[in-house]
Amino acid sequence: MSLLYEGKAKRIFSTGENDVLRVEYKDEVTAGNGAKKDLIEGKGRLNNQITSHIFNYLKAKGGKSHFIEQISETEQLVQSVEIIPLEVVVRNIAAGSITKRLGFEKGHEFDEPLVEFFYKKDDLNDPLITEDHIKLLHLAEDNEINSLKEAAKDVNAVLVQLMDEMNLRLVDFKIEFGRTNDGQILLADEISPDTCRIWDKDSDTNFDKDVYREDRGSIIETYQTFLNKLEAL
Amino acid sequence: MSLLYEGKAKRIFSTGENDVLRVEYKDEVTAGNGAKKDLIEGKGRLNNQITSHIFNYLKAKGGKSHFIEQISETEQLVQSVEIIPLEVVVRNIAAGSITKRLGFEKGHEFDEPLVEFFYKKDDLNDPLITEDHIKLLHLAEDNEINSLKEAAKDVNAVLVQLMDEMNLRLVDFKIEFGRTNDGQILLADEISPDTCRIWDKDSDTNFDKDVYREDRGSIIETYQTFLNKLEAL
Repeated sequence: MSLLYEGKAKRIFSTGENDVLRVEYKDEVTAGNGAKKDLIEGKGRLNNQITSHIFNYLKAKGGKSHFIEQISETEQLVQSVEIIPLEVVVRNIAAGSITKRLGFEKGHEFDEPLVEFFYKKDDLNDPLITEDHIKLLHLAEDNEINSLKEAAKDVNAVLVQLMDEMNLRLVDFKIEFGRTNDGQILLADEISPDTCRIWDKDSDTNFDKDVYREDRGSIIETYQTFLNKLEAL
Repeated sequence: MSLLYEGKAKRIFSTGENDVLRVEYKDEVTAGNGAKKDLIEGKGRLNNQITSHIFNYLKAKGGKSHFIEQISETEQLVQSVEIIPLEVVVRNIAAGSITKRLGFEKGHEFDEPLVEFFYKKDDLNDPLITEDHIKLLHLAEDNEINSLKEAAKDVNAVLVQLMDEMNLRLVDFKIEFGRTNDGQILLADEISPDTCRIWDKDSDTNFDKDVYREDRGSIIETYQTFLNKLEAL
């Protein structure tokens, strides 16, 4: 049961069982690649519950992930994977970095979902990279890159529908993938308001970490309201 | 004969002839997206002569471009094209922005030539963009993007060989393409030490604008030596 890895938002432990890990969600919240940082009681519990709910929902829709089951308020069991060091971002609506980077107006709806890859490398500030860079850096092969893009778009299609039923718009989200021992690529990490941008359809209220990034209210209240909506479906 | 466009390094004029433009190379030299700027007598002449030489050489090797002919020390005639707002960069060896952006060591030789696209947009600082961004911004279609990449690699193959004969290494270069009235895509703009990184094989001396960027000597002497080598072949 030793600690294998500690990230900004989660701790990963080994378990007695082979290839099964225990993930503990932390109350730490960060923004701007760690430039802003706080400990907010209850954040870990909420993200564990939301991620567990969403991974279960994806599974019910036929989507695979590393998720096995939620085992406590702040913990879940997952299949062991080696994380591919790519942040896979899907954007339906322009917000955040892409508005500054490419000049899209915030709120601009893309003709079709846009997939972007960012190289997970703290000391480089997680730069945008192209598919040719991914191959050059030997992060993934050609066919794997296509699989990642297709898988990301599939997750997007399911989540857009889910949010729609909650009267919400899925603006964008970040996911990560990992490789199992036998080379299978699985959706991994988390899907929570920490890793998504979600807007209320009527009021454009945020149900995501922008509330924290931009000091626009209580992250706990926001995430709890989102979880309540999710559980009310 | 009216001035149609003035850029950092060139002026473009109409001519009496349909679809033929006159390009005048200026003595202005800039670096860092205009942050550093100087007027250096003779720079325009050298870049016009070098670009004319290289476009003629590419033509002799079967490569098409907008170039028609050199008509004076500082001027050339070119076919009129609508420039696609993409800087197409080919890298054989890591240097410049990619060392900071992705952490490659300066001098690292890539397994194969890397093609990158940058969005020509001064107020965004010419950001790196992906092929999906290019489609989203309606800058080029899927098949055109492939043509641009293949054309860029073809130019690279010819230039690598040419530099090799001069005992030089072609580190990287930037080219631009344009569309003719009938929709054909042609290599355009210039190919000169302003738009290439060229290292001496033995001494690693630069024959390019890094001499100016990094205040490492006379740009005129450097470009003239390069032109002499080119004409001596």
